[in-house]
Amino acid sequence: MDYKQAGVDIEAGNEVVRRIREMARGTFTPGVLSEIGSFGGLFRLDAAGVADPVLVASADGVGTKLRVAFRAGIHRTIGIDLVNHCVNDILVQGAQPLFFLDYLATGRLEPDVAVQVVEGLSAACRENGCALLGGETAEMPGFYADGEYDVAGFIVGAVSRNRLIDGRNIRAGDALVGLPSSGLHTNGYSLARRIVFDIARLEVDSRIPELGVPIGSALLQPHRSYLSLIRPLLSSAVGIIKGMAHITGGGITDNLPRILPEGTAAVIDRAAWRVPAIFQWLQRTGNVPDTDMLRTFNMGIGLIIACENDAADRIVADLARVGEPNAVRIGEIVSGDQGVRYVGL
Amino acid sequence: MDYKQAGVDIEAGNEVVRRIREMARGTFTPGVLSEIGSFGGLFRLDAAGVADPVLVASADGVGTKLRVAFRAGIHRTIGIDLVNHCVNDILVQGAQPLFFLDYLATGRLEPDVAVQVVEGLSAACRENGCALLGGETAEMPGFYADGEYDVAGFIVGAVSRNRLIDGRNIRAGDALVGLPSSGLHTNGYSLARRIVFDIARLEVDSRIPELGVPIGSALLQPHRSYLSLIRPLLSSAVGIIKGMAHITGGGITDNLPRILPEGTAAVIDRAAWRVPAIFQWLQRTGNVPDTDMLRTFNMGIGLIIACENDAADRIVADLARVGEPNAVRIGEIVSGDQGVRYVGL
Repeated sequence: MDYKQAGVDIEAGNEVVRRIREMARGTFTPGVLSEIGSFGGLFRLDAAGVADPVLVASADGVGTKLRVAFRAGIHRTIGIDLVNHCVNDILVQGAQPLFFLDYLATGRLEPDVAVQVVEGLSAACRENGCALLGGETAEMPGFYADGEYDVAGFIVGAVSRNRLIDGRNIRAGDALVGLPSSGLHTNGYSLARRIVFDIARLEVDSRIPELGVPIGSALLQPHRSYLSLIRPLLSSAVGIIKGMAHITGGGITDNLPRILPEGTAAVIDRAAWRVPAIFQWLQRTGNVPDTDMLRTFNMGIGLIIACENDAADRIVADLARVGEPNAVRIGEIVSGDQGVRYVGL
Repeated sequence: MDYKQAGVDIEAGNEVVRRIREMARGTFTPGVLSEIGSFGGLFRLDAAGVADPVLVASADGVGTKLRVAFRAGIHRTIGIDLVNHCVNDILVQGAQPLFFLDYLATGRLEPDVAVQVVEGLSAACRENGCALLGGETAEMPGFYADGEYDVAGFIVGAVSRNRLIDGRNIRAGDALVGLPSSGLHTNGYSLARRIVFDIARLEVDSRIPELGVPIGSALLQPHRSYLSLIRPLLSSAVGIIKGMAHITGGGITDNLPRILPEGTAAVIDRAAWRVPAIFQWLQRTGNVPDTDMLRTFNMGIGLIIACENDAADRIVADLARVGEPNAVRIGEIVSGDQGVRYVGL
């Protein structure tokens, strides 16, 4: 009995590590001091040029969006999803990403699948100026079903202490600006899959006229990174952005309260933006109550900015200038119990 | 169809988050600026008091040791395993741990199991002076079998740039000092489980006379952290430790070469230490070739220090003084091809 008979193929693992190492090297920024494969990844913080730095860290997965990827046999976008999700989670506190590590666990390693995932991770890391500093590829025989895997991401960024954004100055009367999502991002897939595959009995390549693309493509649309849109605002409009919420699991209902100080609440005008067709189709097909839709999906809004009321128009205009013409004022802060109230529909 | 019917219980998740938050708060160090539940965890690097800091980061899992935990219904030690594994992975480069984040994924969240895991994480974080800064608890229906989960850990530490340990000064003639492991740590469990549960057909509470404890206890013995032993050496003996290898998956055979500069190799004297009974029993029962044992298990050596030959005795004595009387000189560096050669048995 040797290790390979027991289900662990060290050579296949080493081959994947070699290919991953190359892709990761393509993401390296001046701060990286180590090669992939050292016990820990090394990063010189001074290379980031952030004065009086606060480190901002987050861990995330992509949830059961993975199951859609398994059905479609498309894995590169999962890597993109994971990085962009993590980037947004620290961006909302004002941080620029420094480095990223992944944990990829499979039952039996399929080198091509692992490489596809890491291609996506690497591409998204490059796009966000974030080094893929390391990671763990775990082969756990009998643990994951054949052809399946789970992947988690871990990001570290930095922000100058006096530019940290934490929502503490949010006050009644402030405005809320919403930025469009690119689709479901990485949340609500347990419900979406039940509706698409169990209730509607579709396949990933089934076409729904109102979506214009196969349902699999609509569901796998990568989670969008807001870094390129928000970064210019962080330097040009210091102090104007009071708080930001990344709309992930729990929807606007559960995520927006995470930045609301005691004594405040949010009112969201649902007539302010058009809910994308995919969410409308899911709600209709699954007969999902409004409340559940709003607490499960982003409903077309992936990130919310809280700002002084008279700064909102400038922020919307600035976002249009850097490439997002569809940011829109979606609500306001009122006195209240840190909850979200919906009006307008 | 709502989200709970689709298998995701947001309320149960929130209850776990509340309990986790309390435990995590107990690990907070002066550097922590955030509460658990903010989008990113915030850490003031200057609080660590590391001049000219290099960040050292690592991602890890505990592999199929989890399956032994599932059989035994013991989950607290998994949390300890994960943190200590991560701590050692950055310690070998000279870093002190700053903060840790976890990713815990289940099919259906069992609050008590999640809480046990996080109790272990929290206890080990406190022990290592490392803040449990955040994490992700993912409920992925139909993804993991009932009662099963996977868990990954991410650690960030810091070391002054001029105290970074990377093995680059290792030369022929240097000595290798081995520190005892506490058991299998977190590697080799796919093979160990096949031997214990399939070949020997034992249960977790089966007793093997030479082990003195039930096989489940022997297998679940927590991965040891070497921080309290190594930290005193890092300050008292700057420059004396040239490199350190954490003996994880791949054993001494694959891990020691990770710190060997080109043109060097390691000779390990297998007669220098007594291989613990658990490894001897596994080898005999599974009829495992020597080569596979050495490339799969740590064989009783959890961490290896490379140092000047005439510093080895002092390091062994220093380790005895801080609580480890069984560190031992196990080999030396020679000229060669970055491989490991075994002698002595």
